[in-house]
Amino acid sequence: MKLMEEKILREGKVLPGDILKVGSFLNQNIDTEFLGQMAEEISHLFEGKGVTKILTIEASGIAIAAAAGMSMGVPVLFAKKHRTSNVDGSVYSTVVHSFTHDEDYHVVVSRDYLTADDRVLLVDDFLASGNALRGLMALCEQAGAELVGVAVAVEKCFSGAGDMLRARGIQVEALAAIESMTEGSIVFRA
Amino acid sequence: MKLMEEKILREGKVLPGDILKVGSFLNQNIDTEFLGQMAEEISHLFEGKGVTKILTIEASGIAIAAAAGMSMGVPVLFAKKHRTSNVDGSVYSTVVHSFTHDEDYHVVVSRDYLTADDRVLLVDDFLASGNALRGLMALCEQAGAELVGVAVAVEKCFSGAGDMLRARGIQVEALAAIESMTEGSIVFRA
Repeated sequence: MKLMEEKILREGKVLPGDILKVGSFLNQNIDTEFLGQMAEEISHLFEGKGVTKILTIEASGIAIAAAAGMSMGVPVLFAKKHRTSNVDGSVYSTVVHSFTHDEDYHVVVSRDYLTADDRVLLVDDFLASGNALRGLMALCEQAGAELVGVAVAVEKCFSGAGDMLRARGIQVEALAAIESMTEGSIVFRA
Repeated sequence: MKLMEEKILREGKVLPGDILKVGSFLNQNIDTEFLGQMAEEISHLFEGKGVTKILTIEASGIAIAAAAGMSMGVPVLFAKKHRTSNVDGSVYSTVVHSFTHDEDYHVVVSRDYLTADDRVLLVDDFLASGNALRGLMALCEQAGAELVGVAVAVEKCFSGAGDMLRARGIQVEALAAIESMTEGSIVFRA
């Protein structure tokens, strides 16, 4: 998505530690006109694939997922993060390691909202280590739901996680795919 | 909003401890068609009020805020919750007490995204104790931003917090306002 690349070049900031700061439009202060354009693009990329539900994870994936869900006309489910394993039999649950915060957390959805009838599109703001997405995939597997694909706003290709998922036959779409970045330059995948 | 009342009567569940469970459509599994209707209603209620920004708090307010922001054509900012006061001078910050989890947390937004030029509409899923909203108001005050009003999906009128804000001259709009609820019945404000 050319628009996303331009937006990143104009407003994004590369910080030490391979951090791309896009809080000005994507994941803290949300440019809602641009959000609508992102949603249309995601909807277009997965047209005709029979998606029945979008699954994301709190918190920064919710706005993109909600907008994409409105464009596609499907419900949006968000998994919650818990610090403790204080969960009961009414939920699906898995453990995810966060590199950003260097801690494990539990990712949980209610069994009522994710079922074997669902064809699921995973949506998130970033694909870097892929840990959060693999957590969501584990929840789908527990529910017997079918994974249709993955849509993210920004992929850090240099992490390798996106290509590993593609190698498993999963349709992974990034609105902007970054091959490399330094404080002076950002190179997108051609 | 008649639609919201009907939806609550059809899908909501009253649990012990004055909890209204609306996860099936509002704050975990999101009915996106209904989300669009909620957003239109919020946009209508604050038409012509000069709102320049919507402010919400992670996580369950984000979807409603994002949808309302798309309808109104304004950006959406969400405050983050932190367990520790590990914040620097680049942010506005305040402390909020959560009755649900019986703990204090810090609510934070970047100074870059909330300024004295902003006319702010606060949006959240629930208005009960009002603590989260008062936290967001404190952030607006620190930024010198003007508070235009408050829009919530569901107000628990029996908490009194919404009427206390109205008594201070703040326009508080609830898409459904609950006067009383028990496991057998929900009474809406006329």
